[in-house]
Amino acid sequence: MPRQEGRSAAPSAAFGGTRSPGRLVAFSDAVFAIAVTLLVLDIRPPEDFRRLFHGLGLLWPSYLAYSVTFLMIGQIWVNHHVMFDHIRLVDRLLMFLNTLLLMDVAFLPFAASVLSDAFHSGDGERGAVVFYGATIELAAILFNIIWAYARRGRRLLGSTIDDAGARFVARRFRVAIVWIGAGTLVGAFLPLLGVAVIAAFIPAYWLPIRGERTGAG
Amino acid sequence: MPRQEGRSAAPSAAFGGTRSPGRLVAFSDAVFAIAVTLLVLDIRPPEDFRRLFHGLGLLWPSYLAYSVTFLMIGQIWVNHHVMFDHIRLVDRLLMFLNTLLLMDVAFLPFAASVLSDAFHSGDGERGAVVFYGATIELAAILFNIIWAYARRGRRLLGSTIDDAGARFVARRFRVAIVWIGAGTLVGAFLPLLGVAVIAAFIPAYWLPIRGERTGAG
Amino acid sequence: MPRQEGRSAAPSAAFGGTRSPGRLVAFSDAVFAIAVTLLVLDIRPPEDFRRLFHGLGLLWPSYLAYSVTFLMIGQIWVNHHVMFDHIRLVDRLLMFLNTLLLMDVAFLPFAASVLSDAFHSGDGERGAVVFYGATIELAAILFNIIWAYARRGRRLLGSTIDDAGARFVARRFRVAIVWIGAGTLVGAFLPLLGVAVIAAFIPAYWLPIRGERTGAG
Amino acid sequence: MPRQEGRSAAPSAAFGGTRSPGRLVAFSDAVFAIAVTLLVLDIRPPEDFRRLFHGLGLLWPSYLAYSVTFLMIGQIWVNHHVMFDHIRLVDRLLMFLNTLLLMDVAFLPFAASVLSDAFHSGDGERGAVVFYGATIELAAILFNIIWAYARRGRRLLGSTIDDAGARFVARRFRVAIVWIGAGTLVGAFLPLLGVAVIAAFIPAYWLPIRGERTGAG
Repeated sequence: MPRQEGRSAAPSAAFGGTRSPGRLVAFSDAVFAIAVTLLVLDIRPPEDFRRLFHGLGLLWPSYLAYSVTFLMIGQIWVNHHVMFDHIRLVDRLLMFLNTLLLMDVAFLPFAASVLSDAFHSGDGERGAVVFYGATIELAAILFNIIWAYARRGRRLLGSTIDDAGARFVARRFRVAIVWIGAGTLVGAFLPLLGVAVIAAFIPAYWLPIRGERTGAG
Repeated sequence: MPRQEGRSAAPSAAFGGTRSPGRLVAFSDAVFAIAVTLLVLDIRPPEDFRRLFHGLGLLWPSYLAYSVTFLMIGQIWVNHHVMFDHIRLVDRLLMFLNTLLLMDVAFLPFAASVLSDAFHSGDGERGAVVFYGATIELAAILFNIIWAYARRGRRLLGSTIDDAGARFVARRFRVAIVWIGAGTLVGAFLPLLGVAVIAAFIPAYWLPIRGERTGAG
Repeated sequence: MPRQEGRSAAPSAAFGGTRSPGRLVAFSDAVFAIAVTLLVLDIRPPEDFRRLFHGLGLLWPSYLAYSVTFLMIGQIWVNHHVMFDHIRLVDRLLMFLNTLLLMDVAFLPFAASVLSDAFHSGDGERGAVVFYGATIELAAILFNIIWAYARRGRRLLGSTIDDAGARFVARRFRVAIVWIGAGTLVGAFLPLLGVAVIAAFIPAYWLPIRGERTGAG
Repeated sequence: MPRQEGRSAAPSAAFGGTRSPGRLVAFSDAVFAIAVTLLVLDIRPPEDFRRLFHGLGLLWPSYLAYSVTFLMIGQIWVNHHVMFDHIRLVDRLLMFLNTLLLMDVAFLPFAASVLSDAFHSGDGERGAVVFYGATIELAAILFNIIWAYARRGRRLLGSTIDDAGARFVARRFRVAIVWIGAGTLVGAFLPLLGVAVIAAFIPAYWLPIRGERTGAG
């Protein structure tokens, strides 16, 4: 009974070895929700209101960065829950790795603003897509590390997932690394196509998985 | 028993078909609360403090945009809860539709700032009201889509609402589309009147419904 | 059994007459937490880093506005909980009144920034204290209205408080109106003294009440 | 039965003597999550996009301030939970002390922005590290005061920790005062080394404690 042991004795109990992930998940959700809502602060109204729709149209890179990043963080939120639905215990190292992941996700509003500024200015689009893609790639890598760590010997997993399921999740997380990495690489040469490849990752992960049984099935 | 089936087997369990809406509601609430509180960042103190009240008075378009948008998001929050009080299961598509709704609501601080800037500058008021109204209209449309999807064959609804109740909610959501649409249209010609029509939607939805039995009844 | 009745039948169930305050409290807490944390965005680093401590010292009006407003919203948070510990049911009107209260509290970062800017510029301090005090006074008035509405015929109160207790809370809320009103009035003539009177309200409400039995008693 | 007594009678029940810490912890978590996510707003994209990576490289002080402060607040969040895992009752004074702690943590984004601006400008680095370190030191001091107050006569502690455990936590919190104080002092002479000492505090508190039994043990 690892969880009970972690809280039974001092000084072990004081800085507990392991604990249930409830608070970690709540804290992560708050960071995701705030990061996603801060994105709008980067969109600034046009200066000239006499040609308002023209001005609003020129803001397309901001809308692009806003919507791709919003949906991407939404995606990250969903996958974070998928992962922690099956993680029953968290230890210090897992908490630290999760903090690194949050630090990367909370950095995305900056990467998004570099992206939209580059397309606004017409310079540095390639570099900006690489910078933006690399920030998302880091999140994908951290997902893989966290899941691999939690799976090792099933130490931190609950009984809601069997080994085949855990392998299936790991495979899906590995696909993310390749996909986002490919989009970043493409962006180094064709920036808008790179953004499109990265954005295409979103519906691929939202749409039902072939063969997945749905609640209505 | 869709919910149990969705968590029973791998790989289905891994990226679960359906789940209860608790976390989706908590995440949505957080986005609503943040969006509503970020609105104030758009109100900037006047430059000249020697005639402070004069300067504060000139900020009326900011106060108008702040209060209408705040109460509108409050309204959206209430209606979101009404909807998810009766939705017992969420699947991927519902989660995606809800993310689109959040993306639209989190965009409202920008639309509000376009609105107040237009009235400050005295140019582009018509276009700004149309832009602002269209953002709210999109939220109304997404409410209708989400509810229609959840009702279809009562697949995702719980037993807390019967078919008559579900139809009643649907009718109310349809009224929102017409009302906000009308306000947006009016705003294309008479901007302040358009804002007034949109704002009038708020008390209409807050005030008790004729014939509604209250807890004290 | 008002609560059950409110959920039993359609269309009443659809937009329910009354409900428990859990979500309203959670939403309010989120707005308080965000408003309080946004305050820091108004403090800007000095321009000249060669005389850093001199520059940091000149920011005293920002620190003053930050700390008084932070502690005041902390106070409002505590009192909001005191109130909703005893409110067992919320209806539409109560939800609307609470939204007005949140709209006022979320406006405080702006009022605080008017206050600090006035003291920075050396102009308009009197007006700024009046504006700031009036924003807090409105919160105090809304507290009184909400409590009076909830108490009327004990319609919305739970059994955790008796009539004497409800009167006691009402009296305390009335004191807030007088106190903040007095500070605002003083500020119209002696701005810093006005801020001091308003700030003195905070320890008065944090310190234990004479005669209050504590958990250790 | 202190908790029941605190809610039993009026007027004591009205402004209750003690209560369980659930809401205080949730409110604190929200402030930590918001403060940590606001940090990114201080990083501004470079002006010149023709040499984007050069410009992004020049932002290193912003990345440094972002990551050290993010991880430090993450650390504070973990330690706050360790503390309140064992605090079963909170009274007014504890709530006030906790509000002071939150006020200090919510101030950290400003201190971080002073730090990065100083390194950007090349002036005032020493003063900025002292200012930044002092803000963290104040948090460390408040942790010690809150824990000492909660431990006194075990008035507010639960049975999840024995006296040895409580002493162990107190010792760990005292180390924080010395460590951060030393880093601040070093920073008064060698600013980057001071930041390094402060940053080194983070892994020291994240890494497992020697002799700590983990859940897998």
